[in-house]
Amino acid sequence: MTIYQNSYSFQHVIEAQQFDRDTLLNWLFPLADVMEKIARAKGVRDFSNIRGVNWFEEPSTRTALSFAIGLDLLGGRMVYSTENAGKFSSRAKGESIEDTIEIINGYNPNIIVARFAEAGDAAKAASISSVPIINAGDGNNQHPTQALLDLYTVYREFGRVETLKFGVVGDLANGRTVKSLAYLASKFPNVQFYFISPSSLNISKNITAYLDKHEVVFAEHDDLREVASILDVIYVTRIQEERGSFLTDQELEPGRFSINQEILDIMSDEAIIMHPLPRKNEIPRYVDKDPRARYFQQAKYGLYIRMALYQMILYPQMVPSLLHL
Amino acid sequence: MTIYQNSYSFQHVIEAQQFDRDTLLNWLFPLADVMEKIARAKGVRDFSNIRGVNWFEEPSTRTALSFAIGLDLLGGRMVYSTENAGKFSSRAKGESIEDTIEIINGYNPNIIVARFAEAGDAAKAASISSVPIINAGDGNNQHPTQALLDLYTVYREFGRVETLKFGVVGDLANGRTVKSLAYLASKFPNVQFYFISPSSLNISKNITAYLDKHEVVFAEHDDLREVASILDVIYVTRIQEERGSFLTDQELEPGRFSINQEILDIMSDEAIIMHPLPRKNEIPRYVDKDPRARYFQQAKYGLYIRMALYQMILYPQMVPSLLHL
Amino acid sequence: MTIYQNSYSFQHVIEAQQFDRDTLLNWLFPLADVMEKIARAKGVRDFSNIRGVNWFEEPSTRTALSFAIGLDLLGGRMVYSTENAGKFSSRAKGESIEDTIEIINGYNPNIIVARFAEAGDAAKAASISSVPIINAGDGNNQHPTQALLDLYTVYREFGRVETLKFGVVGDLANGRTVKSLAYLASKFPNVQFYFISPSSLNISKNITAYLDKHEVVFAEHDDLREVASILDVIYVTRIQEERGSFLTDQELEPGRFSINQEILDIMSDEAIIMHPLPRKNEIPRYVDKDPRARYFQQAKYGLYIRMALYQMILYPQMVPSLLHL
Repeated sequence: MTIYQNSYSFQHVIEAQQFDRDTLLNWLFPLADVMEKIARAKGVRDFSNIRGVNWFEEPSTRTALSFAIGLDLLGGRMVYSTENAGKFSSRAKGESIEDTIEIINGYNPNIIVARFAEAGDAAKAASISSVPIINAGDGNNQHPTQALLDLYTVYREFGRVETLKFGVVGDLANGRTVKSLAYLASKFPNVQFYFISPSSLNISKNITAYLDKHEVVFAEHDDLREVASILDVIYVTRIQEERGSFLTDQELEPGRFSINQEILDIMSDEAIIMHPLPRKNEIPRYVDKDPRARYFQQAKYGLYIRMALYQMILYPQMVPSLLHL
Repeated sequence: MTIYQNSYSFQHVIEAQQFDRDTLLNWLFPLADVMEKIARAKGVRDFSNIRGVNWFEEPSTRTALSFAIGLDLLGGRMVYSTENAGKFSSRAKGESIEDTIEIINGYNPNIIVARFAEAGDAAKAASISSVPIINAGDGNNQHPTQALLDLYTVYREFGRVETLKFGVVGDLANGRTVKSLAYLASKFPNVQFYFISPSSLNISKNITAYLDKHEVVFAEHDDLREVASILDVIYVTRIQEERGSFLTDQELEPGRFSINQEILDIMSDEAIIMHPLPRKNEIPRYVDKDPRARYFQQAKYGLYIRMALYQMILYPQMVPSLLHL
Repeated sequence: MTIYQNSYSFQHVIEAQQFDRDTLLNWLFPLADVMEKIARAKGVRDFSNIRGVNWFEEPSTRTALSFAIGLDLLGGRMVYSTENAGKFSSRAKGESIEDTIEIINGYNPNIIVARFAEAGDAAKAASISSVPIINAGDGNNQHPTQALLDLYTVYREFGRVETLKFGVVGDLANGRTVKSLAYLASKFPNVQFYFISPSSLNISKNITAYLDKHEVVFAEHDDLREVASILDVIYVTRIQEERGSFLTDQELEPGRFSINQEILDIMSDEAIIMHPLPRKNEIPRYVDKDPRARYFQQAKYGLYIRMALYQMILYPQMVPSLLHL
């Protein structure tokens, strides 16, 4: 399948890697800036003929909400949302993802936003769908719109991605988020990664092999305090207890895999703190007031990125004029 | 936080007590009358730029439905509804209600209708939300729109609230409904309450202390038949078996904590029977045909009250002209 | 109750039997053809004042989706959809279906699409509802829109229903689908049924008695290979393991209660293969490319049938002009 057509037009959004640097810097991110203006005003009506389907095999309430509201802000509508189709729908009776997508295609929506329970199902779905599909996460594989919004956050704050030092902290073993971000950020020159995790939750060898192959510099650490002072981005993640992850008493020491006052004190004034949310104790609430905290903006930027993706998929011909090109 | 601004404009709906008598009698109830006309016709388009989110941490299908259809009748739309976010969303992963609301705020909807699992979360949410919030129930604490529709039902039937005698029957120990109604009705002069419940399900001391403090007359009984003849409103509630409530064989005697023919015979012709629904056997179906039965109207009035609240929150400047003032 | 008014106008859709041959051939099926054109274009706006409620007591994600998208294509909107009301709503607290429908009526929607958990509840609901109801399945009783789309598929392929030989294969004991189809097809002259099922999953005596009474010829078999060559329609169904159905090793032999190459070889070139979906192994994926496979079209035709039903219920006066009559 050809999912990538040109710099500002594509049929599906399946994985972070499908976006090249030109698309990100010259089209997607500037378009997301435009979308912010639309979202903060009353929205537009350009998509009045657009019908979307929010097909979530697993719940991801917030992601589904942002896709629904983003489509509405453009003038389209999410005609149907299912929150838990993997448990409720024919998928629970053993139907293949291809059959499910074929049937939804028959109803002729303009776009399908889908969360898939199984890794790889987004690509399978795209391979047979003439309706555009946006992957809102497929198992432990990818969550490309999360990676895009993460990188967009960095870009908005620093005006660039290249040469930045990313510290990624916490449960790196279970991180779909971390994986997609590493793939995407490594497209930019001289980016450096610092993976800071307990030994039981280290980053997977697949990702480090990928980074090696693409000559991206990275290091592994087991204490944030050792490197916090040199990082541009501190990207904190939650320990995913529901997947069996846990920290020992020693690992729970504040500042080691979490933000505390000591970290705030040694961080650069220009650095930023990110988190894909939800958070638990790894970022205490008093950090919210620190001017370097960016995790709520980050969530908000997801709306603009998703709106920009809708635009590039559904009405790419409008993109140049939206960017005043 | 200031949630109450003037007589017909406020930012959030959090608890029954926030409404004073002037607001109820001169603004909210007359506006609900206008909303009935809109709902029975084809609706209006005034809210075409309004996007709502139905955020239900616990299921309450009917309440969610009436909020969605009410918004649509005004010309807006409920862009996304989640039925069971407490079980499905990040809240299930331990996220605080403040974080959840902050993130939804980032998507810039115009109104959030929320059912909260925990008592007190509605106030917490309102304290950090710049988007208006309507509390559709928070744990066992409050369900203010239910209390408002209850009182509106009484007002429509009697043309007044003051001096009425309210008999509240059944499971008073678990009654969020009863609590909010007692708080609200006691704002009116010379209202009297008769609480009729089995000893295991009596009204809480918090409420009776509140009534004492506000010098509202009340009495406790254990048999509806003793007082049915003098009541203006017989408000029946369901025994909440799912919370462990039950009646003994003796307490199940028809007419004691339920409506039967004997009650219908001794009730005043001008009295009315209410129930927050769903009902089980405490009101047999043959009562539906009695001209004093009002529980289905009561449910319907909830739609008008919710529409009136939307109007007062989102476009209060239109309220005087809607009332022809 | 009178649910049937004239040939192209009715209040409710409750059971397959309510449609007579004239309505099907002269109104519903031609109107579904028109709806296909609307669905493949951008839709219409005729229903801009129409508000629907998707009330599903049990999940049936795809059916709910097609009803929602069909209403939207006509210009209306499904204001609220609940996926699992039987588990979540007041119904779970013991409320009667009559009370539920009465309350939804109070909110004044224009149409209620409902999946009921209990057989017979669709008729009960219709008996008290002034809002039109479409039965999207009631327990193991009926699923009339499925039967209509099945018959429409046959009609589109053959240009007729009469004189066709229907082979119905698989789990016939649990088939709401099979039941409604048998009732509906037997309204046409000289239709013949071949029921092909393992002895543990034979068609119910109710249905064969019905066919006997209406003088419809049928036969029972236990091997598809015996009769595949003479059939016009091979309607395959899934073994409903979730209801305890299973096949023995011998019954699992390919071609016996499933499609395999041998069946494809002996089938007539003009015959078609249908399936209500979801399928498991009873139709292997390589069959999808066979020109006689019709199960995906069949699903798609469901959208057009549902749109046609909306039209006949909500704006029957437009039907003649839509058909250029």
